[in-house]
Amino acid sequence: ELFVLTYGALVAQLCKDYEKDEDVNACLDRMGYSIGIRLIDDFLARSAVKKCRSYSETADMIAQVAFKMYLGVTPSVSCSSATGNEFSLILDKNPLVDFVEELPAERASLCYCNLLCGVIRGALEMVHLAAEVTFLQDRLKGDAVTEIGITFLRKPED
Amino acid sequence: ELFVLTYGALVAQLCKDYEKDEDVNACLDRMGYSIGIRLIDDFLARSAVKKCRSYSETADMIAQVAFKMYLGVTPSVSCSSATGNEFSLILDKNPLVDFVEELPAERASLCYCNLLCGVIRGALEMVHLAAEVTFLQDRLKGDAVTEIGITFLRKPED
Repeated sequence: ELFVLTYGALVAQLCKDYEKDEDVNACLDRMGYSIGIRLIDDFLARSAVKKCRSYSETADMIAQVAFKMYLGVTPSVSCSSATGNEFSLILDKNPLVDFVEELPAERASLCYCNLLCGVIRGALEMVHLAAEVTFLQDRLKGDAVTEIGITFLRKPED
Repeated sequence: ELFVLTYGALVAQLCKDYEKDEDVNACLDRMGYSIGIRLIDDFLARSAVKKCRSYSETADMIAQVAFKMYLGVTPSVSCSSATGNEFSLILDKNPLVDFVEELPAERASLCYCNLLCGVIRGALEMVHLAAEVTFLQDRLKGDAVTEIGITFLRKPED
């Protein structure tokens, strides 16, 4: 709907502005970061969630509360490392790409939804959790699912 | 929330791209138009509204059903011409500017929400109603309310 189409207009504009997919991706990530550091207040106020006590709880909170609230979908979560600091959010359905059929051939490296990675990174930073957030798989690129990887940068013991 | 902040990122990007406010406004209107001509299908499917039989009914529908559905607010409607083809949507609260304090001095002519005008124009065109849609007042510019003017371009008798 309106948000999804507006997001599409934003990505299209950035594709006009930047020739390289990498630059579009970086720009979306930066924009998302700026959004995330502001959105966290809205999230904490509206969700009234308590402090998470583990990375695993944090990842579940992002999937079950934040994604549900802002995108209306609930990704499944899996822990993808023995050290307990790497998680995957797996989306069977990604509402942000509802109106996108496929990426044009000349935009094969575009991470269309990269804004989301920035949002998550920015929001986590505001609750003192440094993390790397990237797309690991993307249905727009022919993968079976869309997968967002979150790597918390400090050890769980810290 | 996420949509409002993403919209802000879009406007900020266009302000980087275009020096003149007029060019940003025109670009937002064009983007909105492209969105409107796609959004109308979603609107008709979700709202299950019947065909409007007058301009007045159409204006009420935009305010009470469409604005409510996509922005969560219901503007009041007034008819502003004796010929019955000019209407105003008056917004006491505009959720799209929730995070905007005021326009920077060098952007005094920016119609921050001009995308909305384009959306309305595009959607109306798809139901065969040609219209001009512009901001007549804007709280961001110090006006008491935000007012969107819709002028239907054919006479009601047609």
